[in-house]
Amino acid sequence: MTTFERVLLAVDWGDDVIGRLVDRLGADRVTRCDPADDASIGRALRVADAAITSAGPDARFVAAPSLRWLHVDHAGIDRFAPVELVGGDLVVTTSAGRSGPALGEHALALLLAVTHRHGALERSRQRRAWTTWPLHGRAPLVGRRAVVFGCGNTGSAFATRAAAMGMSVVGVRRTPGEPPPGFDDVVVAPGPAERRAVLADADVVVLAVPLTDDTHHLVGSAEFAALPDGAVVVNVARGAVIDESALVAALRSGRLGGAGLDVVTHEPLGVTSALWRFRNVVISPHATPRLADRDARSLEIVESVLDDLDAGRPVRRRLTAADAYTKSEPRPTLDRLATSAWLRLQRR
Amino acid sequence: MTTFERVLLAVDWGDDVIGRLVDRLGADRVTRCDPADDASIGRALRVADAAITSAGPDARFVAAPSLRWLHVDHAGIDRFAPVELVGGDLVVTTSAGRSGPALGEHALALLLAVTHRHGALERSRQRRAWTTWPLHGRAPLVGRRAVVFGCGNTGSAFATRAAAMGMSVVGVRRTPGEPPPGFDDVVVAPGPAERRAVLADADVVVLAVPLTDDTHHLVGSAEFAALPDGAVVVNVARGAVIDESALVAALRSGRLGGAGLDVVTHEPLGVTSALWRFRNVVISPHATPRLADRDARSLEIVESVLDDLDAGRPVRRRLTAADAYTKSEPRPTLDRLATSAWLRLQRR
Repeated sequence: MTTFERVLLAVDWGDDVIGRLVDRLGADRVTRCDPADDASIGRALRVADAAITSAGPDARFVAAPSLRWLHVDHAGIDRFAPVELVGGDLVVTTSAGRSGPALGEHALALLLAVTHRHGALERSRQRRAWTTWPLHGRAPLVGRRAVVFGCGNTGSAFATRAAAMGMSVVGVRRTPGEPPPGFDDVVVAPGPAERRAVLADADVVVLAVPLTDDTHHLVGSAEFAALPDGAVVVNVARGAVIDESALVAALRSGRLGGAGLDVVTHEPLGVTSALWRFRNVVISPHATPRLADRDARSLEIVESVLDDLDAGRPVRRRLTAADAYTKSEPRPTLDRLATSAWLRLQRR
Repeated sequence: MTTFERVLLAVDWGDDVIGRLVDRLGADRVTRCDPADDASIGRALRVADAAITSAGPDARFVAAPSLRWLHVDHAGIDRFAPVELVGGDLVVTTSAGRSGPALGEHALALLLAVTHRHGALERSRQRRAWTTWPLHGRAPLVGRRAVVFGCGNTGSAFATRAAAMGMSVVGVRRTPGEPPPGFDDVVVAPGPAERRAVLADADVVVLAVPLTDDTHHLVGSAEFAALPDGAVVVNVARGAVIDESALVAALRSGRLGGAGLDVVTHEPLGVTSALWRFRNVVISPHATPRLADRDARSLEIVESVLDDLDAGRPVRRRLTAADAYTKSEPRPTLDRLATSAWLRLQRR
């Protein structure tokens, strides 16, 4: 039985959900901080043996002298976390999967926005033009094939929805096992050659993997080359899972049918990015629709970790060194400057 | 066994599908016409005892002296057909249901375009603005309730997809029976009061009924008033199933969450229509995505009618007087003039 004596709680949940967690931990043991209040968080970290946070986790969390458990209330830690967080004694967990149903829906919505050409419908609305020509050649998803990288909560939520659309769905993942709901088939951890073989049959590729050193640029020029003409790519994972310059080249070539991107390599997407130019690209600003029970789902995840800790068994959600992300791509200064000038201009 | 001696065939199917029908009917008995070639169709109708057509069916089909069976290769006859076609000796059938899966998908796509605000994403793309504010308050479909008017092929195709999105789905239809796939429950032929009761719980209303005198203005001001705030309406049936001025009033009031309209009362939608103004309305120009096996599905329907005729049993697909549509709303001249001027302007 692991009892925490000083728990830092810095999340933006509703009061009732927070109340339930505080009851479990013991009110006298919890310090609540506003996730935006850096100073309070820094003070609490000097003594905390556990932290549940939607802020950070910056270097102060690594340096916290008594910290034994850190729960990051996000789907992934990738860019935000120092790599030193995982692989040591500290137990680090995340809320991965919390928004699975919303993100699976979002992935399908982006796919339909591209294939049903919702951008063209908006442009026609702006021109008050009832015209079918921008829609010519548009086909439904029925009978088409989706390849989903990542068979976790998000991948599986997308798969069940895609299956109901009459698509066949193949998953690609690291670990063997029964296909989760929605998948017709699952291929385990293929190397680049096997990956290209899977992609050769794909009408749609959906990315739903965590960003790690392994998945960085998982889809690059070789993968785009392997796809059939007209294939559509949807990314609801992290931007750097796609090699963005290869994506732009594939779009420029006209071979790619389009892309639905909830994430990009550098967020916010800069004003100089070529991605804005393509009418067959739908860009959503890293904005998962919010589930009505989102906070309760976070609590459920935190409680399952506490159950593991209390029972003294290995924490099933614990991140390992394989979850670390050490790469990064510095953002060009020119783009930063141009973007801030552009935003100022638009605010006028 | 009903053998037809002179069959007019005026459809735009692929040659292989036409070939299969011609084989069944007997090549010497078939006259093929281009659906756009009015003169040839007129000549063939003087002697035809059967006609399978994606043209017309205008008054000449009513007057054709020997015609015993008319198959109209569209989902509905409503506005195009003279009411005299149905209710007499002539057997009239349609291809209703042929595009069910594509139209069910289209209904879901329109619903997602409204609720996920795909118009806002396109406007942000045009401004190169990575910004979440136009999406604030956006919620996923998970856990929300859809009421579907019409439980035929299209309604059921939508229902199975909506169920996979985690929605609950209630159908409303004329005839009793087991709920088709995807529906949690079916309510039979409610009058206005029962209809308002069903609508009071609806987050989403989908219209998938044929347009008949019964379904004309099925959704009007009383129905909009019954809906909860923020509800969304999707129409993939026919425009006149909604009272369009009541729709505009409901949108103006801000109570309606939005609308996805594949059909409107007067098509093409005129440039003076208020519907173009609302950012929470997605308008698609009566454009069902085309199924890969669309023509084969038409053939299958035509063959099932021939099976009934050949076996001497009642034709299951035969239209009755209840399928007639006698109402019509004349289009304002001003709108016609303004629209044609606007279209000329845009073509420059």
